[in-house]
Amino acid sequence: MDIEKVNSMDFGEFVDVFGNVVEKCPLIAAAVWSQRPFLDLEDLQKHFFAFIDALPQSGQEGILRCHPDLAGRDLQQGTLTAESQREHRGLTSLGADELLRLAELNAQYRARFGFPFILAARLSDRAAVPRELARRLLCPPAQELRTALGEVKKISGLRLADLLCANPAKL
Amino acid sequence: MDIEKVNSMDFGEFVDVFGNVVEKCPLIAAAVWSQRPFLDLEDLQKHFFAFIDALPQSGQEGILRCHPDLAGRDLQQGTLTAESQREHRGLTSLGADELLRLAELNAQYRARFGFPFILAARLSDRAAVPRELARRLLCPPAQELRTALGEVKKISGLRLADLLCANPAKL
Repeated sequence: MDIEKVNSMDFGEFVDVFGNVVEKCPLIAAAVWSQRPFLDLEDLQKHFFAFIDALPQSGQEGILRCHPDLAGRDLQQGTLTAESQREHRGLTSLGADELLRLAELNAQYRARFGFPFILAARLSDRAAVPRELARRLLCPPAQELRTALGEVKKISGLRLADLLCANPAKL
Repeated sequence: MDIEKVNSMDFGEFVDVFGNVVEKCPLIAAAVWSQRPFLDLEDLQKHFFAFIDALPQSGQEGILRCHPDLAGRDLQQGTLTAESQREHRGLTSLGADELLRLAELNAQYRARFGFPFILAARLSDRAAVPRELARRLLCPPAQELRTALGEVKKISGLRLADLLCANPAKL
C-alpha cells in the first residue's frame, strides 16, 4: 500500500486498517486521520508518536493498560489480537516452567507499576524475555513508563511498516 | 455494583467492565483507573468527562470516529458493540425508506464534519432522529464538535449508570 492510497482513505477505512497500530487504541488512529495528508510512512509514524507523547500521563498509562500480558492469559486462551498473536510467535513454544515464571514476574510487574510489561517481542529472542522483565522490574517507575512507551512505539512502527509493506530497518 | 467494588478492581478488571463506557475507547477507561479511588458514580463520571475535555481536538474527533453510524452498516450487519446494540433498540423497526434517508444524511454529515453523526438514541424517539440529523447538518463545525461530544457524554453517563445500576435521572 502506498502513501497515496493511505491519503485517499475516509476515516472509516483508515480506522479499519490502522486501528490496531497501537494495541486496542483505535482512538489514536482515528485522531491521526485529522493530520492527513501524510508525506510518507515516516511522517505517518511521526503523527502516531506525537499523539502518544502529547497525552497526559494517565492517558499514556491507559495505552499501556490496553496491552496483553506477554505470554499471558490471552495467549493461552487464544484471545490475542491478530497483530499481537503474530508478535507472540517466538513465545508459543515456552515450557510450563517458563510460562509459570513469566506469569509470576508479570504479576509482580503489574503490581509495582500499574500497567503490564510490554516488550517489542519481534526484536527480542525468547530467552531474553524473562531476563529483561526481571531487570525492568527494578527500574524507577518514571523511567519504566518511558521505557514501556518506547516499546509501544517500536511495536507500532513495525505494525505500520507491515501495513505499508516497507522495510522496518529503514525507519 | 457499589463504588467500593469499583475501587477494589485491578486495571484488567476495570477495563473489562468500563472499557466501552466510551464506545471502542478502552484507552479512556484505562486512563481513568489512574484517578481511583472514586467517591461515587458522579465522581467516576467526572473523571471520564475530564479526560475527554483534556484531549487535543484531534483526539476528541478520534473519539467520535470510533462510533458507528446511527442505524447504519453495523446495525444491518450485526456488528454493533453490545452497548450500542441496546441503544439502537428503538431504531430496529425503521422501514427501508427511512433507513435509506438516514444513510444519505449520515453520508452528508460524515463528508461535512469528518466524523459520524452521534445522538444519545435512548433519550430520543425514532421520529426525531432524521429531523435532528438534518438540523445538525447545518451547524458550524466548531459548534457541531461540541454538540457531538455532549452526546458522547450523555451516552457514557447512561452506560456508567447502567453498570452501577444507578438511576441515570439522578445524575
